[in-house]
Amino acid sequence: MAQRLASPDEDFSAWYNDVVLRADLADYSPVRGCMVIKPYGYELWEGVKGGLDRRFKETGHVNAYFPLFIPMSFLEKESEHVEGFSPQLAVVTHGGGKELEEPLVVRPTSETIIGHMYAQWVQSYRDLPILINQWANVVRWELRTRLFLRTMEFLWQEGHTVHATYEEAQEETLRILDLYADFARSDAAIPVLVGRKSEAEKFPGALASYAIEAMMGDKRALQAGTSHNLGQNFAKAFDVTYLDRNNETQYCWGTSWGVSTRMVGAIIMVHGDAQGLRLPPVIAPIQIVVIPIYKGDDDKRVVMESVTELAKELKDAGLRVHLDSREEYTPGWKFNDWEMRGVPLRLEVGPREVAEGKLTCARRDAGRKSSKKSVSRAGVQDEVKRLLAEIQQSLFDQARAFLDSHVHEARDYEEFKEIVQDGWAYTWWCGSPECEASIQEETKATSRCIPLDQEPGDGRCVHCGAKATERAYFARAY
Amino acid sequence: MAQRLASPDEDFSAWYNDVVLRADLADYSPVRGCMVIKPYGYELWEGVKGGLDRRFKETGHVNAYFPLFIPMSFLEKESEHVEGFSPQLAVVTHGGGKELEEPLVVRPTSETIIGHMYAQWVQSYRDLPILINQWANVVRWELRTRLFLRTMEFLWQEGHTVHATYEEAQEETLRILDLYADFARSDAAIPVLVGRKSEAEKFPGALASYAIEAMMGDKRALQAGTSHNLGQNFAKAFDVTYLDRNNETQYCWGTSWGVSTRMVGAIIMVHGDAQGLRLPPVIAPIQIVVIPIYKGDDDKRVVMESVTELAKELKDAGLRVHLDSREEYTPGWKFNDWEMRGVPLRLEVGPREVAEGKLTCARRDAGRKSSKKSVSRAGVQDEVKRLLAEIQQSLFDQARAFLDSHVHEARDYEEFKEIVQDGWAYTWWCGSPECEASIQEETKATSRCIPLDQEPGDGRCVHCGAKATERAYFARAY
Repeated sequence: MAQRLASPDEDFSAWYNDVVLRADLADYSPVRGCMVIKPYGYELWEGVKGGLDRRFKETGHVNAYFPLFIPMSFLEKESEHVEGFSPQLAVVTHGGGKELEEPLVVRPTSETIIGHMYAQWVQSYRDLPILINQWANVVRWELRTRLFLRTMEFLWQEGHTVHATYEEAQEETLRILDLYADFARSDAAIPVLVGRKSEAEKFPGALASYAIEAMMGDKRALQAGTSHNLGQNFAKAFDVTYLDRNNETQYCWGTSWGVSTRMVGAIIMVHGDAQGLRLPPVIAPIQIVVIPIYKGDDDKRVVMESVTELAKELKDAGLRVHLDSREEYTPGWKFNDWEMRGVPLRLEVGPREVAEGKLTCARRDAGRKSSKKSVSRAGVQDEVKRLLAEIQQSLFDQARAFLDSHVHEARDYEEFKEIVQDGWAYTWWCGSPECEASIQEETKATSRCIPLDQEPGDGRCVHCGAKATERAYFARAY
Repeated sequence: MAQRLASPDEDFSAWYNDVVLRADLADYSPVRGCMVIKPYGYELWEGVKGGLDRRFKETGHVNAYFPLFIPMSFLEKESEHVEGFSPQLAVVTHGGGKELEEPLVVRPTSETIIGHMYAQWVQSYRDLPILINQWANVVRWELRTRLFLRTMEFLWQEGHTVHATYEEAQEETLRILDLYADFARSDAAIPVLVGRKSEAEKFPGALASYAIEAMMGDKRALQAGTSHNLGQNFAKAFDVTYLDRNNETQYCWGTSWGVSTRMVGAIIMVHGDAQGLRLPPVIAPIQIVVIPIYKGDDDKRVVMESVTELAKELKDAGLRVHLDSREEYTPGWKFNDWEMRGVPLRLEVGPREVAEGKLTCARRDAGRKSSKKSVSRAGVQDEVKRLLAEIQQSLFDQARAFLDSHVHEARDYEEFKEIVQDGWAYTWWCGSPECEASIQEETKATSRCIPLDQEPGDGRCVHCGAKATERAYFARAY
């Protein structure tokens, strides 16, 4: 490449922007706070969508689509909800050349309009549960934006379910939390920590929120997916009721849950390195790039014939392969370009390799030189599949080791303050919003989540010394 | 069903609304003019998306995503464009609690913002062509709306390409027109007519527009997809230029093209009958429904074991099959319900069938009783695949016969007026917007398209008598 990337160790934020732009994932837009998702970035998002959508359908969910616009009065029906979202709203006041009688809000999330519809669709216990997901764009007015991480408009999925009982809603909330964690670990190779959000960090209008939290390359935390037990709050606000088996009217119990294009930001910041992106093979738009290497016309003919056949064979085997036959760039330039774009595996083929029935294989997950090895052309399909699986695991393992080495138990507030300078603290905590606010003010760290599977016990809150029955992760967060 | 559907012969419009609501495709929303797409309707749309997206990718197109909001000033840069769209705009005037300096328009279509981005992405002829598609929601303020056919917000895909020459842009425009026609005919079983739109009907800002036009069950026309050659109009408005091989600056040539959720309305209105929907197997969310029939518990055990295995076998064979094992409904009620929902093939299994190694097969495309036949359990996979292919063809053939029998050549204006009362007229026409306006005023019919492959020749315009070099289809349209 003409210019070097910013160094991730020296300026992680500049490195991130460089990678997003140079790997052609996204671009700034003329509308402040909005982004343009370029084809390579969108294909990565399609990988995320595919992995989630398949899991939603396997667990009995169906997709639907609800309106972009929500009457302002709907948001006002749930008091915490409107308080949480009103500073972030984009409002349509004019339509078809006239001023509207009631302003319309561009959806920041769809609990209200979906609650309104569910009130009409649910009559009896036989209609429950409703397990609907929506793939959509949403708008939240943000002043400080970052490509993928925080944009005024973003793409996401939002699941909205209603159930007959609290237990079923809670089971659904945790089923989705598991599903998100499985996607993050298996597909995105991100070793997320999961748990409940604190009172201060929970969704406006929820009974309880749960999240998957990931550690970025600068050790800051990123909330990569959330699942909320809404209790009966929205059911009461929108009158979503059902007749139970005893013919008595009951309010429904709801959940909602979402993962957004933020996940793309997480993938970049968890796996990327000084050479650019590193994409997990399961969701990489291109899993294998094939680079022909030749000088004269005779070599060219031989090599091009060989790589064309190779690319076809791998494609027919169900792999996502790209043959880079551009003539205006040198092989060395192409190596850098595809490293920047994070393609997991590169296959180089020159005339000697063709003669010997071999090819050279370079893994993106390993160091630069050490990773090259020669493989036999004959068994290339199996070898490539084996290598891709190995790369997927290796990216996860590297991220897991990085996470493990930067999470520390904090026994007191002095330790805590030191740890959150450059890592995550795990500590007894009282859970109060006031205590969390003080901690944030003093350290810039917030509670990330309260793990569900912790051993019972109690201790003293790391900050205020009050009795604490749970431990939580704290970190500076995106 | 409890209530009968409105009759399509007596009140096509009431029948259409009944079918949409009763087949659970969509619902009205609390926001005037917007619709809720319910899971079954959304799955049908996913079928449309899948068929189109595969074809886009096969022809070298990639997906991307551009912002929902467009600065008002952008629309004003192309004069025909702003004139065409400004009466239909939804305008955001407030964001984050403040009035905006410049109002933002909710995209009615994205030529302007995409043109702005292309101006930055294109430098040299090496960057061309750009072949991008976007799956998105758009908003056009509509006063009179109909579910799927005309809604304020709708879902669509919009392709936007830029090329080095007029010829390449024209080739792309027609490639997409062909692609749309192929999708409509092969996947949606709709025998569309294709051609150029008249001056009056073309896209605001285009050099020429092309469309696929379909005949609905009431013989009215529906434009089901459009492809536009934009010439250099948007390139000039947004300064999209490139350096050619001689190092001279040239404006790019553009195209844009779209198919929307309207296509779902077309599928309903082309194939539906007095019993409800009839869905083409290629895009039907459920291709086969299996209905177990039994009385006592012994029969139930035998039948349920058999149908469970049957459903699994068909699913493993890659078919979209649903086993309706609901106990609160009779088989007869289920027959009606799945006929309403348009499932192409129904398999009925009772104890006698299990004993005899057979099952009863009912086709949705044929008349009610005549269509039942007994098939052997042993070869059911092949038989079912054969039947689904036959149904796909039969739905196309029925629609083709219907279209053929209602398109007539009009030799003079008297014939023309009679034909367009209840069909489509094919006739010499001068092409002038004034002439088209008179025809519409007098007959409610508009030009639908001017076929591309007509034999050269000339005649007299059916309405004004001026010299005409082309013939056009005229019809009343949605």
